[in-house]
Amino acid sequence: MRVMTVIALLTDFGAADGYPGIMKGVIWGLAPGVPIADLTHEIAPQDVRAGALALERAAPYFPAGTIFLAVVDPGVGTARRPLAARLGGAFFVGPDNGLCTPLLARAEAAGGAVHFVHLDQPRAWLPTVSRTFHGRDIFAPVAARLALGAALDELGTRIDDPARLILPQPRRLAGGWRGEVIHSDRFGNLTTNLRREHLADCPQPVIVCGGVRITRLAETYGEGAPGELLALIDSAGYLSLSAVNGSAARALGVAVGAEALLTPG
Amino acid sequence: MRVMTVIALLTDFGAADGYPGIMKGVIWGLAPGVPIADLTHEIAPQDVRAGALALERAAPYFPAGTIFLAVVDPGVGTARRPLAARLGGAFFVGPDNGLCTPLLARAEAAGGAVHFVHLDQPRAWLPTVSRTFHGRDIFAPVAARLALGAALDELGTRIDDPARLILPQPRRLAGGWRGEVIHSDRFGNLTTNLRREHLADCPQPVIVCGGVRITRLAETYGEGAPGELLALIDSAGYLSLSAVNGSAARALGVAVGAEALLTPG
Amino acid sequence: MRVMTVIALLTDFGAADGYPGIMKGVIWGLAPGVPIADLTHEIAPQDVRAGALALERAAPYFPAGTIFLAVVDPGVGTARRPLAARLGGAFFVGPDNGLCTPLLARAEAAGGAVHFVHLDQPRAWLPTVSRTFHGRDIFAPVAARLALGAALDELGTRIDDPARLILPQPRRLAGGWRGEVIHSDRFGNLTTNLRREHLADCPQPVIVCGGVRITRLAETYGEGAPGELLALIDSAGYLSLSAVNGSAARALGVAVGAEALLTPG
Repeated sequence: MRVMTVIALLTDFGAADGYPGIMKGVIWGLAPGVPIADLTHEIAPQDVRAGALALERAAPYFPAGTIFLAVVDPGVGTARRPLAARLGGAFFVGPDNGLCTPLLARAEAAGGAVHFVHLDQPRAWLPTVSRTFHGRDIFAPVAARLALGAALDELGTRIDDPARLILPQPRRLAGGWRGEVIHSDRFGNLTTNLRREHLADCPQPVIVCGGVRITRLAETYGEGAPGELLALIDSAGYLSLSAVNGSAARALGVAVGAEALLTPG
Repeated sequence: MRVMTVIALLTDFGAADGYPGIMKGVIWGLAPGVPIADLTHEIAPQDVRAGALALERAAPYFPAGTIFLAVVDPGVGTARRPLAARLGGAFFVGPDNGLCTPLLARAEAAGGAVHFVHLDQPRAWLPTVSRTFHGRDIFAPVAARLALGAALDELGTRIDDPARLILPQPRRLAGGWRGEVIHSDRFGNLTTNLRREHLADCPQPVIVCGGVRITRLAETYGEGAPGELLALIDSAGYLSLSAVNGSAARALGVAVGAEALLTPG
Repeated sequence: MRVMTVIALLTDFGAADGYPGIMKGVIWGLAPGVPIADLTHEIAPQDVRAGALALERAAPYFPAGTIFLAVVDPGVGTARRPLAARLGGAFFVGPDNGLCTPLLARAEAAGGAVHFVHLDQPRAWLPTVSRTFHGRDIFAPVAARLALGAALDELGTRIDDPARLILPQPRRLAGGWRGEVIHSDRFGNLTTNLRREHLADCPQPVIVCGGVRITRLAETYGEGAPGELLALIDSAGYLSLSAVNGSAARALGVAVGAEALLTPG
């Protein structure tokens, strides 16, 4: 067993029903004591895009060799393939529905190794496989075997056509960019898909979202009067909208998918 | 210390107040670094039956020797006994209120060893024992001592009359079975207490629940049009009702306890 | 690495966004496999006092040497200092906003060592530090280095003026004490800031809260008829108000901050 391997778990299973705990039982039955970090199990049911974005935020902060075991899987038991992959310094185990797209994009951008296999070797799975809980029956045992040092090619057949998620990109406007809100967190911070590069030609940027003009570009949440709306580059590099000691989501009355216009001011 | 022992934790303590974390502190003070899997802490307060069903779903997937430390305990501090037990390949630590019934039934069905002790040895507990938090003061230290290799008879006095939970069983009707909903999960899937065996003499089964007839017996959630209602045998072997990409609980307007009639069609 | 060190994690980050998981990635990148216990991530956003109270409940039950990594941090990225400290048998890593006050008070009461440092050594942090997520960029790597055996003075500059939280204390009245509700847990139990010592001169204590007189001082939750209101000394030593098999918070219609009068009866 590679002593240092970590398994990071992300699902849409929620906390109430015990499904992530069952996956840990399967993993520790095969790879006793391997460290497992719960990323989140509160992805909205079947929201593959939200799962992909959560992986994107987390992956850069995990040690090389981490196995991301991610299950947001509306197609469980249908024709969608189960996958495992090496994506640069990370491993991915999960369904073939685009969930791994940010890990793949990051590996490609860094020129790292990319190696996908279609998990088609039942001897790597639990003896009985349900049609409804591949997280337990296929993905958890495969992740455990990777942690134990199994090669991808023992686990499945090489493929080069994984599903990719098309994440919404900002569009160039005459004066600025049209972005959108891609995440709303617990504090009501709104993450847009605009990044620092889009601010480059906006010396005095103004962001318009939910009909409100935000002109203050801050460095951190605590700058400004309570309730004041700020824009800032968040800890994942995205332009985010925040309310000092409050919720920008509530103040602006918007949610994921809302337009966020960036104008040069 | 048995290096491979896992402690699986199930409570109704919720995530907000830190009680399960405190139990981990106690465990790791005695058995440093023993792997602990959270099954769930979101059992509805004092719902012993829901806790038992969550244990039933999880137990088969944990390695032999796993210690199930389960605390759903409306009688804490009263005359109900604190227990530890060997139940086939598993250990149980928790209150004597029927919570362990599925582990016991499974051990009995498999002809495994069954050995209960009433925890009556204060030297195995924390030095000070409250009347309100036996999870911390009695059960966590006992689970840690089991993980360290203590024998049950060091921890308490043998008993053979543990409380048993009477779980509702389907009833035979003239043409079919009368079952009921025993769990509703995060996705709105409704688990009934009907199992594959009840389908045996129903070549074209029809399930009636919440006044709706469900005629499609599917293999997995993704079969059918969005919103379509399906019946399927779920990953724990129960007949469950699902809505494709939706919530059967919401579509049928029913909750735990609702009648689910199975007719041969 | 000190093999036995545990890191206990407390934040107001919630379960949905994956931030605590990211901190585990950072910790395990530096201190592979160090045991991490989640205390809670459900402290109300920016409620430093609630975070401090949760630390107070948990700290006595963790092994000596535990590192409490606590992030409830409305001032992240502003002038508030990042801190690490030895407080008797425990370590603290987190913001300088009073969150550590109960650990400090406990160390002082026990005559234990108290040693604070202002974290001003960027070489102990991640290479890039955001202004908005010091939990990831400063506190997690510092906690990992402490787990690996780093001395506080390698991590920062000694200070002796940490911020202290003023927790509300009961006030003496002509006949009794005026306390207040400081916590409401998942079960609707209401914790007051009254303790056993305040009961000393009240042979037949009556507690008045939300306009209701509670005269029964019980030993545990299960004493009394369902719905009956009880006062008891809870598992952390506080006088608490409970409803048998129910919620005192709902029955009394009160929340944190409500007055709780103790009279000698």
